[in-house]
Amino acid sequence: MENFSFMNPTKIIFGKDTIKEISKEITGRKVLITYGGGSIKKNGVYDQVIKALASFEFYEFGGIEPNPHYETCMKAVDLIKEKSIDYLLAIGGGSVIDATKFIASAACFENGDPWQILERKGEIKKALPYGTVLTIAATGSEMNDGAVITKAATKDKLPFSSSLLYPKFSVLDPEITYSLPARQTGNGVVDAFVHVIEQYLTYSTEDTTFQDNMWEGILRTLISEGPKALKEPRNYDARANIMWAATWALNGWFAQGVDQDWATHLIGHELTALFGLDHGQTLAIVLPGVMRKLSEQKSVKIKRLGKEIFSIKEESSSELIDKTIQATEDFFELMGVKTHLSDYNLGDEAIEKVGNRLNERNWKLGECYNITGDVAKEILKLRK
Amino acid sequence: MENFSFMNPTKIIFGKDTIKEISKEITGRKVLITYGGGSIKKNGVYDQVIKALASFEFYEFGGIEPNPHYETCMKAVDLIKEKSIDYLLAIGGGSVIDATKFIASAACFENGDPWQILERKGEIKKALPYGTVLTIAATGSEMNDGAVITKAATKDKLPFSSSLLYPKFSVLDPEITYSLPARQTGNGVVDAFVHVIEQYLTYSTEDTTFQDNMWEGILRTLISEGPKALKEPRNYDARANIMWAATWALNGWFAQGVDQDWATHLIGHELTALFGLDHGQTLAIVLPGVMRKLSEQKSVKIKRLGKEIFSIKEESSSELIDKTIQATEDFFELMGVKTHLSDYNLGDEAIEKVGNRLNERNWKLGECYNITGDVAKEILKLRK
Repeated sequence: MENFSFMNPTKIIFGKDTIKEISKEITGRKVLITYGGGSIKKNGVYDQVIKALASFEFYEFGGIEPNPHYETCMKAVDLIKEKSIDYLLAIGGGSVIDATKFIASAACFENGDPWQILERKGEIKKALPYGTVLTIAATGSEMNDGAVITKAATKDKLPFSSSLLYPKFSVLDPEITYSLPARQTGNGVVDAFVHVIEQYLTYSTEDTTFQDNMWEGILRTLISEGPKALKEPRNYDARANIMWAATWALNGWFAQGVDQDWATHLIGHELTALFGLDHGQTLAIVLPGVMRKLSEQKSVKIKRLGKEIFSIKEESSSELIDKTIQATEDFFELMGVKTHLSDYNLGDEAIEKVGNRLNERNWKLGECYNITGDVAKEILKLRK
Repeated sequence: MENFSFMNPTKIIFGKDTIKEISKEITGRKVLITYGGGSIKKNGVYDQVIKALASFEFYEFGGIEPNPHYETCMKAVDLIKEKSIDYLLAIGGGSVIDATKFIASAACFENGDPWQILERKGEIKKALPYGTVLTIAATGSEMNDGAVITKAATKDKLPFSSSLLYPKFSVLDPEITYSLPARQTGNGVVDAFVHVIEQYLTYSTEDTTFQDNMWEGILRTLISEGPKALKEPRNYDARANIMWAATWALNGWFAQGVDQDWATHLIGHELTALFGLDHGQTLAIVLPGVMRKLSEQKSVKIKRLGKEIFSIKEESSSELIDKTIQATEDFFELMGVKTHLSDYNLGDEAIEKVGNRLNERNWKLGECYNITGDVAKEILKLRK
């Protein structure tokens, strides 16, 4: 196990009818509510938040798109400066929360264009405090310090993080997720599943028995509860277990001391930026390809995944690996998320574009830093 | 899953040679180091701490006994007041850290005798900040807000907690535990194991699939790594996995939303207070009795423990329960911790005393509040 130093200061308020608690948590005077396309106005979440904020001066910034744009975020920053807003409240899923993290940073950024934060040229030295009301179990953004932002002008989708960016609190009410479309429920479970895989299914010389056991606990939960939530959208227990497990898939605690991959995410980001696929959809396509291409390097963990999580009986090494990759793909399909480029009418041209963009960035992805743009092309060719 | 609201603000500094980090974490000017019987002076930990504190004004308070005494703690409080100490640093295991939690609270307690905190008559409104350097994997006290203190005069061993009592930081260097006597290694693993069981092996009408899966991850770790550490005391990976798993067995996160038992601990506390048994020794005696006596109430989880953790093959319900209880007992014995009262020359007289003390307190223990002093006597009679 590698040395580490870590804390996670986010307070979690979990359960039925908990949105009303936010009034006790917000320490600012002027609050900006951030949200997306308006589903919160249909499912009652918006009304609950407005009621809870009765004693605050508050403003609204809606219309944050999926894979949120830098350009959109900067409009919120203008509003914050104009109104001297001192606290943010994100109501949404990963996109809204990620956008809010960037807005919180950009509003306090004093050295030019905040896009520099994404280019790793500008440091976050201060950020506005914020809380979240989570509306989809997926990204873990509700309890971590990272986010991904897209510059629409250049189609660059890039991650950033800062220890100043943990939410002060996050409200996780599983009932909010009852009204999610099946596509979003599926995408969310796939996203959380792949978050675990990126931190578990690695080649490593470190002994991380404890973390591996905990990752498997999260995977088991997603595999047993995910299909339940698809079949019975109003099954509270399934929704609660998924919501809480998804938070743990990316809140940083079990990432400590372990090697990490993230190639699937970073290749997937290009598919989203260039062709508009949902984030979860890209992961379901890319991961089986990464597992196949890196099957030798990752063989110990792929076999462990097969035996422990998919209960595949002892077979030859190559059979076990084949069946495990297939079982992973089958799980994504079971969650209603397609696993091939052709499902979205993408082919060789798309593969070239994605690979070339990664080559241009000169990225070497994965826990062994051996996935170049050319290797990504090979991975995607396995997923036509 | 029940509603909950929780945060855990402790920073963990984990790994080899990390004690030197404490100088960056301590925010006070005058530091009191608290410790126990002096083993830290033999294994080099004391020297490392002193070196790291070179730039601080610091004082020492050693001699904190196992199952720390209120009377001892109050002497430290006198020293704190005399020297205007503003930060504490606990170097030790659960006893030293628990004592430090009480000292931190008592030093700021302004309404009479701080023993009232243990009697639930006095509220903790303020506490001195403190950090810890952990020397044994066991109690989880390094990342939670609870503690247990004994009044020597009356042999009352009582728990208390306050959200003001999380350590600001805890240093977990697994190498420190290389020199632990086998008895302490065994006790520590048993303690962590039983912490999980108290929060997992319960009768519950709630669906806590996620938490159950995570508890099982901790149990798996303790069962695979515990015996390794006994056989190879200087096995870093085993020590690291145990240390980190033990912290998670009682840091509060997976306790959220679940029912809890704690009967084994509270019956065990009486055995320690009256007869001086190690804490871990009492747990290894009491737990199999609790499982046996409550086997009907706890049957679902006992069977799950048997199948998932001890890999007991499907059998009749009663056989599965019997074998699971036996496997639990066998694991404790494998860790070198005895499981019967007779191993400590205790019998009917001791059982009477323990049960009567619980009856006097009018406690009704367990997740169903059905373990009175009389039931505790029946439990202990199964453990002669």
